Amino acid sequence: MLYVYAPDQGDLYASLLRAALPEWSVAAWPAPVDPAAVTHVAAWAPPPGFFAPFGQLRTVFNLGAGVDALLTRDDLPASVDIVRLTDAGMAAQMTEYCLYGVLHWQREMDAYRRQQAEGVWLQRQTRLRADVRVGILGLGELGGRVARDLVGMGYRVGGWSRRRRELDGVVCRHGDDGLNETLASSDVVFCVLPATAATRHLLDAARLACLPEGAALINAGRGSLIDEAALLARLDDGGLRFAMLDVFSEEPLPAGHPFWRHPRVIMTPHVAADTVAEEAVRQIAARLGGGDGGAAPAGRIDRQRGY
Amino acid sequence: MLYVYAPDQGDLYASLLRAALPEWSVAAWPAPVDPAAVTHVAAWAPPPGFFAPFGQLRTVFNLGAGVDALLTRDDLPASVDIVRLTDAGMAAQMTEYCLYGVLHWQREMDAYRRQQAEGVWLQRQTRLRADVRVGILGLGELGGRVARDLVGMGYRVGGWSRRRRELDGVVCRHGDDGLNETLASSDVVFCVLPATAATRHLLDAARLACLPEGAALINAGRGSLIDEAALLARLDDGGLRFAMLDVFSEEPLPAGHPFWRHPRVIMTPHVAADTVAEEAVRQIAARLGGGDGGAAPAGRIDRQRGY
Repeated sequence: MLYVYAPDQGDLYASLLRAALPEWSVAAWPAPVDPAAVTHVAAWAPPPGFFAPFGQLRTVFNLGAGVDALLTRDDLPASVDIVRLTDAGMAAQMTEYCLYGVLHWQREMDAYRRQQAEGVWLQRQTRLRADVRVGILGLGELGGRVARDLVGMGYRVGGWSRRRRELDGVVCRHGDDGLNETLASSDVVFCVLPATAATRHLLDAARLACLPEGAALINAGRGSLIDEAALLARLDDGGLRFAMLDVFSEEPLPAGHPFWRHPRVIMTPHVAADTVAEEAVRQIAARLGGGDGGAAPAGRIDRQRGY
Repeated sequence: MLYVYAPDQGDLYASLLRAALPEWSVAAWPAPVDPAAVTHVAAWAPPPGFFAPFGQLRTVFNLGAGVDALLTRDDLPASVDIVRLTDAGMAAQMTEYCLYGVLHWQREMDAYRRQQAEGVWLQRQTRLRADVRVGILGLGELGGRVARDLVGMGYRVGGWSRRRRELDGVVCRHGDDGLNETLASSDVVFCVLPATAATRHLLDAARLACLPEGAALINAGRGSLIDEAALLARLDDGGLRFAMLDVFSEEPLPAGHPFWRHPRVIMTPHVAADTVAEEAVRQIAARLGGGDGGAAPAGRIDRQRGY
């Protein structure tokens, strides 16, 4: 059977999945189930120990973009496949989130907000899209789509990924030197990298110093990508105009953390891109629709690589 | 000769125009000229009396979107043609301005800003583009382009104009009833109407009351379109989530005006769309390039209608 853990949307997922997979038995937490009957789970951030009772578990569908939290759990043996959904409506939301930050920079909404508070009427120089350089860190399904959307709108887009990639209209770079070059040639940097051992504190003090004076940083990937103390220092010394942060090394962000009240920080509580239930169910059903649920589904995570 | 009034960009315009129109004599204020030689002027918001000395003036090219200020001057006789440029790079900027406000509403950046100030970590419901209703008031060159751009991005777009218009993918309405219906079915209303006798205080208390609870209003047209006292009342009683205002009944907005410090007002100092010099010059040159400058150029304003 397929068991769903999605606290606010459990009933929605269960009814959509039952309609899409009539031959499957579907239940949603907190409905009680026979643990031995659970072979598949669709879940977003279930509590510790959630998977432990399911001795027959074969596959977990992750109802979010990042799988890092699933990979480090002690209740998911290596024999269980972890499956990431393909986009599931998240890429369009990532474009919106990135675009808001890009427009905030391009149209100087941060400066105008300050001017409004100070009662200052001052027109700043117009900046056209073709003169705004956006650097996307992470060119997978989400970052790749954001890059293409921004190219389509007329922005100058560069991108960086661990492995070499090619995208029409995007200056693609990879490797350590490529990262420094991407940062140095970006007015706005948008991060959508996954959290892995290799990306931890990828943006440290030295890397943040590569950004041009007055640039902005948007993080919709994972909090661990950024050395937050180094970012705070760069915001405090005025080197960066602003940071727009959706993810943090600790979530919820602890009370009293300097980000909460920082005048150069725009904070959102990990909402940049949410899974769209209808699309997630369509993909799960496509993978399980064979009826036997036996084949390893597409989107399976490579646990060594971490994504 | 062609005389330019564009205080910050006079030299830029003069050199672009000389290159584009080698057979013309071009000068830019404050360079002294023989007033009797000036037959054409390209200007944005010249001071009172500016045109008075030019006895041979035939045509004024307006380097902005709205011509209302030119129509009420006492130094421009009816024999002088007033010519509006076509878009001139402004429509793309209008889309950016509108989109920023739409994203601010859709992605609840106003609520997240408040939550950040209060130290509250709370995820709000995701809203997809297809569920956001944007109403565009004014479907001319600027509004029409904004409407098409937003349709292309997947928003639900309605539009209103004085005369009947048709735009693919846009629910177009006109007339008094059409305006009320457009307002009542819009989550975000974007105004780009011209300032005429017919549009003065078009959005008064009764019209603002048509907007659904929690809607937002963006004004990038003219300040006179809105009864500002009625708007303030609607913001104060919480009926509108926010107003994003680029234009005001008096500009610069007077010190101490409640908009400056209002928590539900995002203010910008008349910068939503600026004329792009290169594009403006291309259009002026296309109209004057015949050499004799004799024919009445396209884009001539109907003084009765006011746009």
